[in-house]
Amino acid sequence: MANKVQVLYDFTAEPGNNELTVREGETVTITNQGVGGGWIEAQNSRGEVGLVPEDYIELPGGGGNVGHVAAPVAAHAPDLSFFDAFAAPANNTTQNQASNGKDPWSVWNQDTTGGSSNNWAAQPEGTVTGKSAAPDPWGSTAPSHPQAYQGPGAEDDEWDDEWDDVKSNSESGDGGAIQRGGATGSSMKISLNNRFPGFSKSGPELFLLCKQPPKGKEKITIYMGEVGPVWSYPEAQLDCVVADPKKGTKMYGLKSYIEYHVIPNTTNRPVNHRYKHFDWLYERLLDKFGSAIPIPSLPDKQVTGRFEEEFIKMRMERLQGWMTRMCRHPVVSNSDVFQLFLTYKDEKDWKTGKRKAEKDEDVGVMIFSSIEPEAPDLDPIEVEQKCDQFSRFTKAMDDGVKDLLTVGQEHWKRCTGPLPKEYQRIGKAFQNLSSVFTSSGYQGEATLTDAMTSAGKTYEEIAQMVAEQPRKDLHFLMENNNEYKGLLGCFPDTIGVHKAAIEKVKEGDRLVAASKITPQDKVTMAKRVGTMSYALQAEMNHFHSNRIYDYNRVMQLYLEEQVKFYETIAEKLKQAHSQFTTM
Amino acid sequence: MANKVQVLYDFTAEPGNNELTVREGETVTITNQGVGGGWIEAQNSRGEVGLVPEDYIELPGGGGNVGHVAAPVAAHAPDLSFFDAFAAPANNTTQNQASNGKDPWSVWNQDTTGGSSNNWAAQPEGTVTGKSAAPDPWGSTAPSHPQAYQGPGAEDDEWDDEWDDVKSNSESGDGGAIQRGGATGSSMKISLNNRFPGFSKSGPELFLLCKQPPKGKEKITIYMGEVGPVWSYPEAQLDCVVADPKKGTKMYGLKSYIEYHVIPNTTNRPVNHRYKHFDWLYERLLDKFGSAIPIPSLPDKQVTGRFEEEFIKMRMERLQGWMTRMCRHPVVSNSDVFQLFLTYKDEKDWKTGKRKAEKDEDVGVMIFSSIEPEAPDLDPIEVEQKCDQFSRFTKAMDDGVKDLLTVGQEHWKRCTGPLPKEYQRIGKAFQNLSSVFTSSGYQGEATLTDAMTSAGKTYEEIAQMVAEQPRKDLHFLMENNNEYKGLLGCFPDTIGVHKAAIEKVKEGDRLVAASKITPQDKVTMAKRVGTMSYALQAEMNHFHSNRIYDYNRVMQLYLEEQVKFYETIAEKLKQAHSQFTTM
Repeated sequence: MANKVQVLYDFTAEPGNNELTVREGETVTITNQGVGGGWIEAQNSRGEVGLVPEDYIELPGGGGNVGHVAAPVAAHAPDLSFFDAFAAPANNTTQNQASNGKDPWSVWNQDTTGGSSNNWAAQPEGTVTGKSAAPDPWGSTAPSHPQAYQGPGAEDDEWDDEWDDVKSNSESGDGGAIQRGGATGSSMKISLNNRFPGFSKSGPELFLLCKQPPKGKEKITIYMGEVGPVWSYPEAQLDCVVADPKKGTKMYGLKSYIEYHVIPNTTNRPVNHRYKHFDWLYERLLDKFGSAIPIPSLPDKQVTGRFEEEFIKMRMERLQGWMTRMCRHPVVSNSDVFQLFLTYKDEKDWKTGKRKAEKDEDVGVMIFSSIEPEAPDLDPIEVEQKCDQFSRFTKAMDDGVKDLLTVGQEHWKRCTGPLPKEYQRIGKAFQNLSSVFTSSGYQGEATLTDAMTSAGKTYEEIAQMVAEQPRKDLHFLMENNNEYKGLLGCFPDTIGVHKAAIEKVKEGDRLVAASKITPQDKVTMAKRVGTMSYALQAEMNHFHSNRIYDYNRVMQLYLEEQVKFYETIAEKLKQAHSQFTTM
Repeated sequence: MANKVQVLYDFTAEPGNNELTVREGETVTITNQGVGGGWIEAQNSRGEVGLVPEDYIELPGGGGNVGHVAAPVAAHAPDLSFFDAFAAPANNTTQNQASNGKDPWSVWNQDTTGGSSNNWAAQPEGTVTGKSAAPDPWGSTAPSHPQAYQGPGAEDDEWDDEWDDVKSNSESGDGGAIQRGGATGSSMKISLNNRFPGFSKSGPELFLLCKQPPKGKEKITIYMGEVGPVWSYPEAQLDCVVADPKKGTKMYGLKSYIEYHVIPNTTNRPVNHRYKHFDWLYERLLDKFGSAIPIPSLPDKQVTGRFEEEFIKMRMERLQGWMTRMCRHPVVSNSDVFQLFLTYKDEKDWKTGKRKAEKDEDVGVMIFSSIEPEAPDLDPIEVEQKCDQFSRFTKAMDDGVKDLLTVGQEHWKRCTGPLPKEYQRIGKAFQNLSSVFTSSGYQGEATLTDAMTSAGKTYEEIAQMVAEQPRKDLHFLMENNNEYKGLLGCFPDTIGVHKAAIEKVKEGDRLVAASKITPQDKVTMAKRVGTMSYALQAEMNHFHSNRIYDYNRVMQLYLEEQVKFYETIAEKLKQAHSQFTTM
């Protein structure tokens, strides 16, 4: 039977949340697959009905197609609510950084404690302590699920053919290579030094003490604007549309993939990209800008929606959101690699650009050498104050966003679960009473019974509306906050680089006294940490201005839809009311 | 501590209903006493919070005052949800009838199987079988709680002083007397023969075979109206107001009671009555009209609301509802006893009238002897068909009403419990994020943060509205259905008398053959069962017309308030929305 499915993992219901406790191997009957928010409604053999995370259930038709969603490896996950639809992606970002070894703290610490021969063996103070195993960049005590995330390549076994050049390039690179965490069947290897330039030369001091900033072609200017340091914004805002997902096949139809059209507003000419191309772009942007600019993770593969179309739609929507955010960033959008992605002319152009981007040495902290603040040098005390302020703010906002996501998730569940069921029952009770009344045999009953039936149907309609509403408003509020959660998850890295640099500058006097650096080096370091601070301030101002725009927009949309929702209900009830007569 | 209270009885939470399982003797903390609908919110020692029926908890300040609510005797009650605020009164009606021995079936059967010497020893067929122990008049399998109801006098220890005359009257009556079921310290005894005239002379046949209908002064006419047989309605509708509850004391202030003003629209002159006077009136009306007209029980003492004022208000509201229904009934409202209750001139007038009413012999099935249908004799087959139809209808409506009450109760709980909490959390999350934003130090933040704070406050207001709404609309829907539940609970008795009479008539030929009755008796019986049928039809038509009026009114009120509710929410959200700006 199509409705009978097997439970893949144990799930313990939270009391009072209308969830259903299920055990691995148990067979349940799906009673409502359209609940949304990552939940389905199921009934167990004892007749109990409740919500179960859809990923915990072997849904029909899910396996094998391109829309297949990774099953969570839940055996070691103590807090299974981790897999909640909205909780997953951002946590995975964290996982991604941890399991891929991309956490700048861990890399940096590996170096400083790893017996290298440089001068920076002293541990920095404050938050910059050994955290290589902690998946939460904020260092909170939230439960971690190191096995839950299998890496972005885990099931995208499309990573092959034309990408061999990545491999050869990496292997010919200037250092060791790591295989991407947990990726199965993946031949992708990434040059570690390219991605973490501080790995052998100790983080920010690579920039702080480099003999002379390389003459990069790409210069990044910072101006003093009304709100303080700001990036140089282009006159016309770059934007793009991600559209027209098309299924393609390769290996004689054995493998299929989805190709999207990406259409920038500059050329209006679509280019084709697959998910792995977006992933490649993400890696390049992270390498190049990650020390100065938070580059949010790509939308996770494990997005809501089990059916292929729904899955593709959801992934496209999130890729669109990611691309829009990147387009809006004046530094990212202006970079060669991003422009290549949007406007490559043909396959040859693409391949050439790709190789060039992968060979770019102006990555990691060296991005700061491209930055030219048109502003006076900064007082190191002010630099540190600003940094602390940003750190507090981003942490506080991260908490606020997570809180809203939790609340929204609960609300989603209620709106799609018990609440419409209740309205439906009210509607049924009215209709039931109405049909009893019809059987009275009494004359002059029709007006009342018609009105009561109509009122009952109205409540059934309201039930439907309530269940559908979250997709119309809460969805966007959740997506926006989810995006911000991902973005905020990048700040500890960015701020960490900054704090590490401040610590180095603080050690200046001691290092000069020990003749480790010259007095001139100390002056250069102070100036350069000022440049880094301008970059951080410009980025924070960019973040704030986008945040104000985004939250204005999403709150407006949410409230607009909420108003419509309540107005429609009131209107429907008004009509139902008008059918009753006072005698 | 005032908030710590003891649990009086075990209560097992229904899963998914936000209820809290508690055990007798356990101490819980009241977290919200204003939930309404008979529930309070409490927290146990493990920190779990949920709803518990308020009667299950020893609330502070409840004991000793006039508003003291009877503790349910739950030890033998398997289904504790029986004590739900709305479930209780009507069930108690049932209990009342069962424990007081007032079930016409049981009385009738006692007689027919009790070895008496009359002619009616044959068991009637159909539903008229031994049911003396079944508290549910519909004969359903619903769990019964024989000990749950202690009788109306159980804790009304006001039943004394001037009421001694009742006692002497009863004892001088024409038969044995029973003490009212479970009444403690009550000196009230009721003449059994007065209340159940069939007890020694076998139910309806008392009327069917009586030599000559007594020449009562009160004649009850039935006309043929558009809808069929109808009672004779007065030109002006009698109505009354129950108001101005005043606390009085007696026994040098040791005992207190509440006295109400009852003001009929005929005289506009208030008379004073205490609850026990209403109770006395109920008993008289039941005695006199119960075989022909469903006389709903008085509002139970155990009404919702623990605090004295709330309790008094609620009881008054329900006494008003009961009196309005009685006033609306053309036969009841026109009776001497009812008129006496509304318009007695002074204490002497009242006492004289009271004695007279208690001596009234025109009670029980003999009420039919006062009824004069101005219509042709009825075919016994039609009589039976009508009776069956009414039986089916009232049973079906009883089910429908109970269903609506169950649904309404669930909805009440959600609206006053989890739902407002969720809106409050959404509101808090918005405000929280807003205050994080305020800390950004970024210029031009104020418009967004003000708007978000305002949106957050709006959701807190909505939470408040949601929690208060049931008292504004659902309350009246519930009260109306609760009243109908009580009314419908009387029909099995009324219809039972009728069915018993039909059975007697069916036996006519056999009885004539056995010379138990004369052929003339048989003709008289057929004619008289026709009179009974006219009475039943008139009563059903009265019921239907009232029902149509009541449900029209209450549905209108409900929908009107619902429209206002949703419109207000939409308006509030619109205002919140207007504070956001598109940049």
